Amino acid sequence: MTRWARFRSNDGRIGFGMFEETHILEYEGNFFAGARPTGRTFAQDAFTLQSPCAPSKIVALWNNFYALSIKLGKAAPTHPLFLIKPGTSVIGPNEPIRRPTGYAGKIAYEGELGIVIGKLCKDIRPSDAVDHIFGYTCVNDVTASGILNENVDFAQWCRSKGYDTFGCLGPVIATGLEWSRLRVITRVDGVERQNYPVSDMIMAPEELVSRISHDMSLLPGDVIACGTSVGIGSIKDGCAVEVNIDGIGSLVNVLSPSPS
Amino acid sequence: MTRWARFRSNDGRIGFGMFEETHILEYEGNFFAGARPTGRTFAQDAFTLQSPCAPSKIVALWNNFYALSIKLGKAAPTHPLFLIKPGTSVIGPNEPIRRPTGYAGKIAYEGELGIVIGKLCKDIRPSDAVDHIFGYTCVNDVTASGILNENVDFAQWCRSKGYDTFGCLGPVIATGLEWSRLRVITRVDGVERQNYPVSDMIMAPEELVSRISHDMSLLPGDVIACGTSVGIGSIKDGCAVEVNIDGIGSLVNVLSPSPS
Repeated sequence: MTRWARFRSNDGRIGFGMFEETHILEYEGNFFAGARPTGRTFAQDAFTLQSPCAPSKIVALWNNFYALSIKLGKAAPTHPLFLIKPGTSVIGPNEPIRRPTGYAGKIAYEGELGIVIGKLCKDIRPSDAVDHIFGYTCVNDVTASGILNENVDFAQWCRSKGYDTFGCLGPVIATGLEWSRLRVITRVDGVERQNYPVSDMIMAPEELVSRISHDMSLLPGDVIACGTSVGIGSIKDGCAVEVNIDGIGSLVNVLSPSPS
Repeated sequence: MTRWARFRSNDGRIGFGMFEETHILEYEGNFFAGARPTGRTFAQDAFTLQSPCAPSKIVALWNNFYALSIKLGKAAPTHPLFLIKPGTSVIGPNEPIRRPTGYAGKIAYEGELGIVIGKLCKDIRPSDAVDHIFGYTCVNDVTASGILNENVDFAQWCRSKGYDTFGCLGPVIATGLEWSRLRVITRVDGVERQNYPVSDMIMAPEELVSRISHDMSLLPGDVIACGTSVGIGSIKDGCAVEVNIDGIGSLVNVLSPSPS
């Protein structure tokens, strides 16, 4: 298993490399194909982690875990149900989630597994999907819950989940993970709120990548947020949300009030 | 009024420039700020038009014209209701709309005015919006109507409108247009199907840009598709759809069957 990170060095440069406990081994070239080590090493006080990729879009699933679908009383879907979070929504580890200006309503966390695409996917078969998945990351699919059903005629999925800073990704992308053994654990100010097995997924990563690739081209760096399960809830300004997946690590982001 | 086009020259290079009836005056540099003429001219047999911009996203409005909201019996919204069409959906003039593989259902055209963003928009005021709008283009917001309400629990806006080739833009971006005097005319195989005044909009371009900029950052080249009005319908394989707006011109795309 390898953990890849993007980082900003103390001199302001954006780089990427292999993430070790105490340092990063810098790489250069194409992140997704044929990257080479530069020979440079960055100690942990010499860089700040960034979002581990810069997706053109996050394809975010609704109703993809049996436990939550049963709780909501909804039938299991036969094709992925998704919305798009724009690239502008993405932040990395330790960056603040910003409350939208003028919005005083509820803000919800949703801890999720994220699939990071490594190669252009267009109409690919499930059996070819593994070859197109670069790795996995943690996602906090932040939602302005008060917006979602504000209009009775039109559920505002893209708006309520598309605000800048509402697509938290990181801390790294882990390659070579066996997804079916993973658990997603979400803690709010240190208190566990979600702890669910990824194996409870209705549609597995290979099937998601294949099916969604028939709906739209997926580009290297694009992220599929696999949907959440039971235990979601809302957070107050100042709360720290941690999404933890074994092998990937902990993604922590604090909800900050909107600028006055 | 100036009309800007992106083009592929016969030697395969992508360029942009000022579009005249019989030729393009090529420019270079930043398309949205401080572009300079190269002195080169391309005659009309020396280039192929491309989509006039390459948006990171299309923000596509639902229910933004009074005539259509009355026909549908829906209240006029108080905030833009939108979905996101990904950048991968974009095609330019004369490129084929591709029927999704394995989908035999209805495909609808929707002729619309498109706002092309020229500067980063984040929490901007309506009075500052004009300064952030680069110009206007024609949009055909293609929709796989049979997908939209296929699942009873979740309206699939992003999927039904997000397929590759379902975001037709062009033929050019016109700057200095007075939007309130425009009409959107849509013809299918030469027969007029839509002909509506843009002045019937519920939320005008300046208000759309301002309000949506409070929901997410808009980047240079991003497009807001202003929503359609009465007269939408479905097309069969082989049909040519033309969206015409005076001053911008005609955007023509033919629906092609999916590859067998």
